[in-house]
Amino acid sequence: MSNHVYKLIDLVGSSTAGTDDAIRNAIETAALTLRHIDWFEVVETRGHVVDGRISHYQVTLKVGFRLAPEEEGGANAGSDIGIVAGRA
Amino acid sequence: MSNHVYKLIDLVGSSTAGTDDAIRNAIETAALTLRHIDWFEVVETRGHVVDGRISHYQVTLKVGFRLAPEEEGGANAGSDIGIVAGRA
Amino acid sequence: MSNHVYKLIDLVGSSTAGTDDAIRNAIETAALTLRHIDWFEVVETRGHVVDGRISHYQVTLKVGFRLAPEEEGGANAGSDIGIVAGRA
Amino acid sequence: MSNHVYKLIDLVGSSTAGTDDAIRNAIETAALTLRHIDWFEVVETRGHVVDGRISHYQVTLKVGFRLAPEEEGGANAGSDIGIVAGRA
Amino acid sequence: MSNHVYKLIDLVGSSTAGTDDAIRNAIETAALTLRHIDWFEVVETRGHVVDGRISHYQVTLKVGFRLAPEEEGGANAGSDIGIVAGRA
Amino acid sequence: MSNHVYKLIDLVGSSTAGTDDAIRNAIETAALTLRHIDWFEVVETRGHVVDGRISHYQVTLKVGFRLAPEEEGGANAGSDIGIVAGRA
Amino acid sequence: MSNHVYKLIDLVGSSTAGTDDAIRNAIETAALTLRHIDWFEVVETRGHVVDGRISHYQVTLKVGFRLAPEEEGGANAGSDIGIVAGRA
Amino acid sequence: MSNHVYKLIDLVGSSTAGTDDAIRNAIETAALTLRHIDWFEVVETRGHVVDGRISHYQVTLKVGFRLAPEEEGGANAGSDIGIVAGRA
Amino acid sequence: MSNHVYKLIDLVGSSTAGTDDAIRNAIETAALTLRHIDWFEVVETRGHVVDGRISHYQVTLKVGFRLAPEEEGGANAGSDIGIVAGRA
Amino acid sequence: MSNHVYKLIDLVGSSTAGTDDAIRNAIETAALTLRHIDWFEVVETRGHVVDGRISHYQVTLKVGFRLAPEEEGGANAGSDIGIVAGRA
Amino acid sequence: MSNHVYKLIDLVGSSTAGTDDAIRNAIETAALTLRHIDWFEVVETRGHVVDGRISHYQVTLKVGFRLAPEEEGGANAGSDIGIVAGRA
Amino acid sequence: MSNHVYKLIDLVGSSTAGTDDAIRNAIETAALTLRHIDWFEVVETRGHVVDGRISHYQVTLKVGFRLAPEEEGGANAGSDIGIVAGRA
Repeated sequence: MSNHVYKLIDLVGSSTAGTDDAIRNAIETAALTLRHIDWFEVVETRGHVVDGRISHYQVTLKVGFRLAPEEEGGANAGSDIGIVAGRA
Repeated sequence: MSNHVYKLIDLVGSSTAGTDDAIRNAIETAALTLRHIDWFEVVETRGHVVDGRISHYQVTLKVGFRLAPEEEGGANAGSDIGIVAGRA
Repeated sequence: MSNHVYKLIDLVGSSTAGTDDAIRNAIETAALTLRHIDWFEVVETRGHVVDGRISHYQVTLKVGFRLAPEEEGGANAGSDIGIVAGRA
Repeated sequence: MSNHVYKLIDLVGSSTAGTDDAIRNAIETAALTLRHIDWFEVVETRGHVVDGRISHYQVTLKVGFRLAPEEEGGANAGSDIGIVAGRA
Repeated sequence: MSNHVYKLIDLVGSSTAGTDDAIRNAIETAALTLRHIDWFEVVETRGHVVDGRISHYQVTLKVGFRLAPEEEGGANAGSDIGIVAGRA
Repeated sequence: MSNHVYKLIDLVGSSTAGTDDAIRNAIETAALTLRHIDWFEVVETRGHVVDGRISHYQVTLKVGFRLAPEEEGGANAGSDIGIVAGRA
Repeated sequence: MSNHVYKLIDLVGSSTAGTDDAIRNAIETAALTLRHIDWFEVVETRGHVVDGRISHYQVTLKVGFRLAPEEEGGANAGSDIGIVAGRA
Repeated sequence: MSNHVYKLIDLVGSSTAGTDDAIRNAIETAALTLRHIDWFEVVETRGHVVDGRISHYQVTLKVGFRLAPEEEGGANAGSDIGIVAGRA
Repeated sequence: MSNHVYKLIDLVGSSTAGTDDAIRNAIETAALTLRHIDWFEVVETRGHVVDGRISHYQVTLKVGFRLAPEEEGGANAGSDIGIVAGRA
Repeated sequence: MSNHVYKLIDLVGSSTAGTDDAIRNAIETAALTLRHIDWFEVVETRGHVVDGRISHYQVTLKVGFRLAPEEEGGANAGSDIGIVAGRA
Repeated sequence: MSNHVYKLIDLVGSSTAGTDDAIRNAIETAALTLRHIDWFEVVETRGHVVDGRISHYQVTLKVGFRLAPEEEGGANAGSDIGIVAGRA
Repeated sequence: MSNHVYKLIDLVGSSTAGTDDAIRNAIETAALTLRHIDWFEVVETRGHVVDGRISHYQVTLKVGFRLAPEEEGGANAGSDIGIVAGRA
C-alpha cells in the first residue's frame, strides 16, 4: 500500500464573471503545468470594485496535487505552477 | 411566547455545475425527510479535480431546522436527514 | 478499562428571558430523548430584535452524550434529539 | 506619496437567485451613496429556507472605500451606506 | 421578491449587573436612532475589575438592521448609531 | 454524473493507549451502524489525567459518510451512529 | 454607575514609512471627526509592493469610541469617521 | 510615562447558578492572592450535565493583572493565583 | 455544592519518539509539582528537523488543575509547574 | 537525547514609543526573573488613545522558557514572571 | 548577524500506519530535494476510510527550510519539493 | 478584460532590528528572483530570545505575485523564491 505525499499551493483566480469562474481560471492555469491535481479548497473570496461595480471577483484557493518523486523524470515530480524547465 | 429549540446538522452537497448548485442539492436532499428547515450556513467550499478540470464542487453546510417535540407523532419530532421511520 | 465513544450534536436553544435560560431550554429538550448527556459547549450567542427590544436570545451549543452501543436495545444506543422509535 | 485611509463597513446582501447576485446587490446599494468603493471581502454565506427550498441567499461582506477627508465638502468625506446629508 | 440589504455595526454594551444586561444596554442605545434592527451576534465578552471585584461586564456585539434606501427620507435610510441629522 | 450528498457527524473516541487508537475506536463504533463511511477530520485532541498520569486520550473528529436516499430502505439512507431501527 | 456604550469602526491606515506609522495615520484621521476615541485593536497587516520594494504598509484596525447619546447635540453623539454634518 | 507590563493567567470558574456567577467565582478566587487585577476576557463557556440537568456552568477566562516588579517585596510583584509564599 | 476554580497553564512537551510521548513528557513534568491535574488540551503540534530527519516532536498543550485555596497550606493551593516552595 | 519541557506565559508589554518597544519591555521584564527564555509569539496588538493621540501601544505575547526541573533548587525550576521567593 | 529568510511549503503526508508515520513520510519526501529543512507545523489531520476501517491517515503540515540565495548555484537556493533541474 | 492568476508563497523574514525590517528582508529576498510581486500579508510575528534579549524578530508573511504564463519564456512565468533556471 503506497503512502502518497501531496503538495498544496496557494493561487488566486480572478474573473469578471463570477466566483465559480475565478476558481475555474485558477485550476486551468495550474493544469497548464501540473499533472495529478486532485482537489482544491477555497480560502477566501474578495473582489475589486471600480465606479460602483464589481470589476473582478478574486478567489484564493489551495490546489492539491500528488507528488510523483519516483517517476524521476516525470514532469510532475515536483512541478509547481508556472515552473517551466530551467526556470523557477 | 414559545422558546423553540433548533437542531443543526452538517451536510456536504456536491455538483458538477457549481457552488450554488451544490448547496441546492444538499438542501433538497435534507427536505426529503426534514420539515421546518429554516436556514443554512456555508462552512467550507472544496472541489475534486480530474484531468485538470473541476469534476465536482463540494460545499459543506450546516442546515438548521426547528424541533417540534410536542407533536409527538410529528415526522419532524426528531427527523434527521435520511432517517426513515424505524431507522436512524 | 473501557474506551467510551461519545456523540456531539448541535442545538440552538432560545429564550425570551436570557442566555443561560436559552442553554437550559436546549439541554432540557435534549434530555427528553437522550440519556447519558455529559456536557455542553457554547458555540455562538445571537438574538432576535423586534421593535427595538430583544425578543429572543439564541444560544448555539454542542451537546455531548455517551454512546452505549453494547446495550443493543438501550434507548441511548444511538438516540439523537427527538429521534423516536420509527422516526428520524 | 499620500497615505490614504480607508473605511470598511459590514453589509449583508441577499438574493433569491444566488450568492454572486447577493454580493452584487450589496455593492450596488453601497454605491448609491458611497464613492471611492475599492474592494469587498466575503465574511460569511448563509441562506433562508422556506418549504424545503432556498428562499434567499445571504452574503455578509466587508466593503472598503477610500476616505477623502481633505475634500471637506466631498460627498465621500465620510459617507456611509445610506447616510444622506443631514441623516445618519 | 425584494432582495433586502442589511448593515451590521459593532457596539460594546457595558453593565455593572451582568452580561445579558450589557447586551440589552447596547440594543437599547442602538434603538434610540436605528429602526429595522433585526438581530445581534455576540463577538466577545470582557470585563473591568476594580479592587478585586467586577466593576463592569463589557459585551461586544454586531447589531444588524435593514437598510431602506428606497424610503429616501426614511430616518433609517442610512441611520447609524447616534448619527443624528447633520452629524456623523 | 450523480451529485452525491454526504453527512458529517461529530464523535469523540477515547483510548487508554494513545491518540491514533482513540481515532480507531470512534471509526469502529461508527462502522457498527454506518455504511459508506468515507473520511474523518480531527477537530480536537484532549485527555483526562488521574494521579498525575494520562488515563484517557480523547479525540473529537468529524466522520463523513455518503447518504444513499435513493435506496429507500437502505440501512444507510439515514443511519446515524447507533441509531437502530425504531430508536434514535 | 453609568453603563457606557461604545462603537467600533474598521479603518485601514497606510504609510510608506512603516506599520506603526500606518496605525497613527488611521487614528489621526479618525480624530479629525471623532471625540472620545478610547482604544484600537489591530486586525490585519498587509502591504503593497511595486518594483520589488514595499510601497505602502496597510494596517486594518478597529477604533473604539464612547457614544454620548445624552449629549444630544454633542458632535460625538454619533460621529463616525469623516461623517460631517449633513453628509454620510 | 511608565510602560507597565501585565500578566494574563487562564482560570476556569464554575457555578451551579449560571455563567455570570462562574465568572465572579474565578475573579474572587484570583483576588484572594492577586492585587492590581485589571480585566478579564471570556475564552469559552461549557458545562457539565447530570441526569439531564445542568450541574455546573464552567467559564474559561483570561485574567489580566499589572506586574509591579519594582515594588520588590510587593505581594503582587509576581503573584499568581493561589501561589502563596513558599508554595507553587 | 462547591464551585471549584481551575487553573490552566501552557506547556510544550518534546520527544524524539513521537507526539503522544511528547504529551506524556509534559504531563509527567507537570505532575512533579502539581496535584489535582485534571485534563489537558492539545493546542499545536510542531517539530524540529535536523539533516532531513525529525529530531524532536514538540506538542504545545494546556494543562488544567483544580485550585484548592481553602487548603491554605495545601501544596497545590497555587502550585504552578516547577514552582518550588519560596519561588515562583 | 533529552526531551525538554517548556512553559509559555502570557504577558502584555506596553510602550509610548511603538509596537516593537512594547515587545522589548515585556521580554526585559520577563528576563528580570526568568532564565532560559527561548522565544516569543505575538498574540494581539492593541493601544490606548487619549485626546486623539496614541498614548500606549499594548502588545500581548506568549513568552516561552525552558523548565529545568532537574536543577531542583534552580531559580528557573519554576520561576514565573515576577514570582519571587515565597510569593506567587 | 545575518538575517536569514525561510520558506514554508504545504505538504500532505499519508500513511496506513498512523499520524506520526504520515508526518515522517512527508518530511522524508521533502528531504529528497530540500536541504536546510528546519521545522514543521501540523495544520490538519484527516483520514480516508474504506469498508469501515481507516485506510490512510493524512496529515497536512507546513515544512520550513532556510533559503540560501547567496550560494547561487546551491541546490537549495530555491529548491522546492520535487522540483528537479528544468522541471516545475 | 484579462483574468489574471496570482500565486502566494509563505516566507519568514528575520531581523535583529525589528518587525518592519524583517518584512523588508523577506520582500527583498523574494524580489531577487520574482517579478510582478504585488502584495504581502503578515501571518505571524515571533522572535528568538538569547540571554534575556531579543536576538531576532521573525515575521511570517504571504507574498503574492502575478503569474505570466503567456510570456512563455518570462522569468516570472512561474518563478518561485530562489528557483534558479534549471532547478526547483
